[in-house]
Amino acid sequence: MKINLINPNTSLSMTGLIAASARAVAAPGTEIRAVSPAGGAPSIECHFEEAIAALGVVEEVRNGEAQGCNAHIIACFGDPGLDAAREVARGPVIGIAEAAMHAAMMLGTGFSVITTLSRTIVIAEHLARRYGAGHHCRRIRAVELAVLDLEQPHCHAFERILEEGRAALSADRSNALVLGCAGMSDLAARLSDALGVPVIDGVTVAVGFAETFVRCGLSTAMHGDYARPPAKALQGWAEAFSVRD
Amino acid sequence: MKINLINPNTSLSMTGLIAASARAVAAPGTEIRAVSPAGGAPSIECHFEEAIAALGVVEEVRNGEAQGCNAHIIACFGDPGLDAAREVARGPVIGIAEAAMHAAMMLGTGFSVITTLSRTIVIAEHLARRYGAGHHCRRIRAVELAVLDLEQPHCHAFERILEEGRAALSADRSNALVLGCAGMSDLAARLSDALGVPVIDGVTVAVGFAETFVRCGLSTAMHGDYARPPAKALQGWAEAFSVRD
Amino acid sequence: MKINLINPNTSLSMTGLIAASARAVAAPGTEIRAVSPAGGAPSIECHFEEAIAALGVVEEVRNGEAQGCNAHIIACFGDPGLDAAREVARGPVIGIAEAAMHAAMMLGTGFSVITTLSRTIVIAEHLARRYGAGHHCRRIRAVELAVLDLEQPHCHAFERILEEGRAALSADRSNALVLGCAGMSDLAARLSDALGVPVIDGVTVAVGFAETFVRCGLSTAMHGDYARPPAKALQGWAEAFSVRD
Amino acid sequence: MKINLINPNTSLSMTGLIAASARAVAAPGTEIRAVSPAGGAPSIECHFEEAIAALGVVEEVRNGEAQGCNAHIIACFGDPGLDAAREVARGPVIGIAEAAMHAAMMLGTGFSVITTLSRTIVIAEHLARRYGAGHHCRRIRAVELAVLDLEQPHCHAFERILEEGRAALSADRSNALVLGCAGMSDLAARLSDALGVPVIDGVTVAVGFAETFVRCGLSTAMHGDYARPPAKALQGWAEAFSVRD
Amino acid sequence: MKINLINPNTSLSMTGLIAASARAVAAPGTEIRAVSPAGGAPSIECHFEEAIAALGVVEEVRNGEAQGCNAHIIACFGDPGLDAAREVARGPVIGIAEAAMHAAMMLGTGFSVITTLSRTIVIAEHLARRYGAGHHCRRIRAVELAVLDLEQPHCHAFERILEEGRAALSADRSNALVLGCAGMSDLAARLSDALGVPVIDGVTVAVGFAETFVRCGLSTAMHGDYARPPAKALQGWAEAFSVRD
Amino acid sequence: MKINLINPNTSLSMTGLIAASARAVAAPGTEIRAVSPAGGAPSIECHFEEAIAALGVVEEVRNGEAQGCNAHIIACFGDPGLDAAREVARGPVIGIAEAAMHAAMMLGTGFSVITTLSRTIVIAEHLARRYGAGHHCRRIRAVELAVLDLEQPHCHAFERILEEGRAALSADRSNALVLGCAGMSDLAARLSDALGVPVIDGVTVAVGFAETFVRCGLSTAMHGDYARPPAKALQGWAEAFSVRD
Repeated sequence: MKINLINPNTSLSMTGLIAASARAVAAPGTEIRAVSPAGGAPSIECHFEEAIAALGVVEEVRNGEAQGCNAHIIACFGDPGLDAAREVARGPVIGIAEAAMHAAMMLGTGFSVITTLSRTIVIAEHLARRYGAGHHCRRIRAVELAVLDLEQPHCHAFERILEEGRAALSADRSNALVLGCAGMSDLAARLSDALGVPVIDGVTVAVGFAETFVRCGLSTAMHGDYARPPAKALQGWAEAFSVRD
Repeated sequence: MKINLINPNTSLSMTGLIAASARAVAAPGTEIRAVSPAGGAPSIECHFEEAIAALGVVEEVRNGEAQGCNAHIIACFGDPGLDAAREVARGPVIGIAEAAMHAAMMLGTGFSVITTLSRTIVIAEHLARRYGAGHHCRRIRAVELAVLDLEQPHCHAFERILEEGRAALSADRSNALVLGCAGMSDLAARLSDALGVPVIDGVTVAVGFAETFVRCGLSTAMHGDYARPPAKALQGWAEAFSVRD
Repeated sequence: MKINLINPNTSLSMTGLIAASARAVAAPGTEIRAVSPAGGAPSIECHFEEAIAALGVVEEVRNGEAQGCNAHIIACFGDPGLDAAREVARGPVIGIAEAAMHAAMMLGTGFSVITTLSRTIVIAEHLARRYGAGHHCRRIRAVELAVLDLEQPHCHAFERILEEGRAALSADRSNALVLGCAGMSDLAARLSDALGVPVIDGVTVAVGFAETFVRCGLSTAMHGDYARPPAKALQGWAEAFSVRD
Repeated sequence: MKINLINPNTSLSMTGLIAASARAVAAPGTEIRAVSPAGGAPSIECHFEEAIAALGVVEEVRNGEAQGCNAHIIACFGDPGLDAAREVARGPVIGIAEAAMHAAMMLGTGFSVITTLSRTIVIAEHLARRYGAGHHCRRIRAVELAVLDLEQPHCHAFERILEEGRAALSADRSNALVLGCAGMSDLAARLSDALGVPVIDGVTVAVGFAETFVRCGLSTAMHGDYARPPAKALQGWAEAFSVRD
Repeated sequence: MKINLINPNTSLSMTGLIAASARAVAAPGTEIRAVSPAGGAPSIECHFEEAIAALGVVEEVRNGEAQGCNAHIIACFGDPGLDAAREVARGPVIGIAEAAMHAAMMLGTGFSVITTLSRTIVIAEHLARRYGAGHHCRRIRAVELAVLDLEQPHCHAFERILEEGRAALSADRSNALVLGCAGMSDLAARLSDALGVPVIDGVTVAVGFAETFVRCGLSTAMHGDYARPPAKALQGWAEAFSVRD
Repeated sequence: MKINLINPNTSLSMTGLIAASARAVAAPGTEIRAVSPAGGAPSIECHFEEAIAALGVVEEVRNGEAQGCNAHIIACFGDPGLDAAREVARGPVIGIAEAAMHAAMMLGTGFSVITTLSRTIVIAEHLARRYGAGHHCRRIRAVELAVLDLEQPHCHAFERILEEGRAALSADRSNALVLGCAGMSDLAARLSDALGVPVIDGVTVAVGFAETFVRCGLSTAMHGDYARPPAKALQGWAEAFSVRD
């Protein structure tokens, strides 16, 4: 089985980080194709960058399908381009926010999300509602670190997430935490140990869900709401994204 | 006052049609800048095409601001790029689905939407929920005409919408109708007359709402959830969409 | 175009204040008929006073229609008598709470309401739910000033609203504010300037929405849920409110 | 114990009918004061008539309190004036729609309402949402009989409600029915027998709930959201409704 | 009339306490059968103990029916076994959480629940949602006393509930309180006096509701969602709970 | 890895059927312990039988933990005993309704459930709401076959489910189906092929989700809402279910 792990931003160090997380939990025989799109932003922290990322995701879903991938993961917590990707893919497509929230609903009675900058809270809020987690998501908290600062040792990402996590357990009464950025993927296990509750990284969970769907023979329906986009002549810069069936 | 009326698809005949609708209701002194983006799809009927359109909208919001526009209208019923556009605009940004649904909530107790192809129903459904119209929107109906067929006389768009509208009044108990495509803009008045209930075209209503916000001095807040996108070096094809402040 | 601006309370100084606000934003050619009903309470701060006000509103809608008004505004934040008014009016009827909340949903991702006395919070809460703003309305805050005290310089209405507004921006993460009383209408612009987010006064926004609906030829449907009240012989004091068609 | 059973319309035959229903289920020692207000409409079938009825209810709550009533029932399915009545009453106030819906939620998994004219459906719909019965109320059905026609033998009210009830059991999968008009009160037992599910008349259930609250020493809180209306000088026709404490 | 008051735990002192509460409010002629099941836990404070209690409740509903009871009350705030009990009972079955929440919705605009240990908060939360009290229930507060400690004088249950109640009135803006444990039944009246708002004990309210349903001839429908369990050969320990019709 | 697959009913042929389904999708190295509890009902089709099953599930979770199982699956579509099982288990616990609904939310825009008897619809309805699938679950359909009849060739289970599935695709506009009974597990693949949309069997999906959680090191938090049940002396028949830590 081959899973297409798409980092929608262009920072290759993050692609490497999530590839390592994914490979650490993948079942024997699962191959991980980890990529960044050719075009995009170095990190995704607002709606505008999500709009850019959506097209990068579509591009890489197509590339992944051409290379025989059986399933696709969108490894940015805003799940940019999820609906569009489902229309162009043959295999299932999973967003990491989606995967993490569904996992959290199966593991606890209520969860808190810990995200990077507070301006991204509203994005997680809308996703929680869309994915049916309106009641389960008790609060979304920001550590006020930019995505690319998570890797900077002097930013103390682990300590700040830990502190926010402690607040979530007591003030929000949550018994599960969701990490609100793919770039936090490597911290999940240590946080889980330190806090004594499941700390969910969407990247690893999405790998397991993707394997599940493939093994169960389940994919997105190719008609109805997610039918293939009709072939049309796209104009200008958009031509490069034309449907290629 | 100058309003930037963006047709997110590249069909100039539709741009002309909605420009005429907009100018017919604009207050004296309001200038309408009606445009299509340089890149995009000839019509927008799925999530993939919406993702494409979102970037075209961002582009034209920027062009409109450079030309002194005071407010922006996204004239496609899926409101593609609405959040991204608000981050890059100084003036208010209104989607026509948004405008039409809010108008419908102020005019009736429950409304039905009449859209083009049934594959777009789910898009309107998600928007209705997002805009708080979950309870007010009683049903979304499709006439099974493609967007560009609305203008073809032999497709009898008026008759088919009228028929669906009649069904909405009786079966859905709706007392307001929302037209689910900018390309139906020219039919609203005749349908209203024939059905005896308000038939709402988002284009014209959005013009009035835009004028209202400008006259009242109201715009999207430029900090918090809709703060300006940070300046970052976008890669590859995305470079053309870089933040230019 | 002639708009019927109804102040449902009997305080003529407030009628004057909102008339000035309305006229300041009305389009050229729009005439504002600003009135208080013959019977009612000097200010409206509880459910009982709203019940009284509802009949005053109905009375003035009828008077306004007799004088050729094209649309009606109920300028009290509880929107008293809104449904009844729609049954008796030919033109559209807009409540200022309704207008302000719909505007706030089109301008920001989440808003806070700032009302007068905390006993009115529950009224705004019910309206927010009814108008579909359940998720958008992040909190309703009271400055603990009675309606008629807003005009008293020693009450420092502006400063108290400003302070509450600041709290809303940080604690509620709101990026739009809604003023919860028609009597705050004259403070909106200064508050907007001071806070850097849209501060929405329902009176002015409702004027623009009313103009929009009239120009677009939209009115409340006169059958279905808002059909005209049947002619019946009302008894006792109610006789004065009989249907007069 | 003395219960104030208020028929908000002015049809004395209906007052007699519901008084009989109430007395048939009241506990020994419970006295029923059954009244119609001095002013009002002969039947209540739209929002305008509800606005009229609200003041009649307030008036009769005060009269009932003056006569020593311990609790109040608003015996019209729209529960007109409920919030206002709670502000002016010392004892608990119960609307029959409220009582019937809460009873239905305790007796079945889902209920249907059977109302008179379809124009009243929207009123029941809003009440269901307000009372938390959004999910439990599976459908609201109308028999298209005016309130005052229920008593006309040639209108076959019983048969028509029975037929609609049968449809509710099969098509809506309901296992409880709520009668949507006080004037159907005398039919509840026969319908229950014929259909084999609880058919709930709000009048009788409200009597039991009122007795319950009085015996348990429970009443509406007299501060907070339902604090007494402040004493103010009402103007014009409203003077007659002034607060009298 | 005979009411089956089931204490789902095995602590007979609590059975005595709630029997006294019930008898104090029962109408003349109402007999209270107060029992604990033969098998069960001494107190119910988690989901596991609720699962145990559910079968004890079913057992006692059957015993009560055999002894001619007309209605059944489940006197534990988690309402364990409510759906199962309705399937096996002929008379109506009422949970005390259900009764208290419905009463609170008829008495105030918003209520707070005061429960024992914070681990039971989630149970009350789920019930509030199930019973339609999602919006009315403003908060659930715990005094951190175990159920059986409520009776220990040195635990100062009254004082701690009073303190939490005061916080609810100010911080939650509630105007009704619901006691989250049958073992608090004897404190309701004193708390009500001290706080000036209705403090609702589900046991007493449920007695009144049960009497109401019996007098109105209302019971759970015996077909549809609550039809009798089919007769089947239960295995092992479950055999003792077999259907006995 | 060892997964505890609990069939909560006592029909061993069904235990065999689901064991086969589970083993067919399990990753290499995953061992499936498939069991029925010692006590219980031969099939589970009502709330009473669910209450019985809940204790059987608890019993088998404990047995499974004693035998080194790393995760637990409750293979009955009502997910009986889910909360209680989470309190007694060390590993994650997944219900098949839960797993199937979360999978459906990740694969399509809206799903229909196809269940056995219509009396079980309400159970699925409540679960859908609890799991956040309120909007995604478009309809629950019953084929009116008892659980144990699914295996009877003359009952034509496949054909009847297929027919209902076709209706779901067209009338409900669903693009995913959820099988509402573990006993339908063997039909999923053929139905998927015939219908062209994902047909989700909770048993197989739950196996993949369980593997995912174990590999990612995620389990239910053992404090907070799902803390271990306190050790207490259970009485009578319940003694056999005592906490054994």
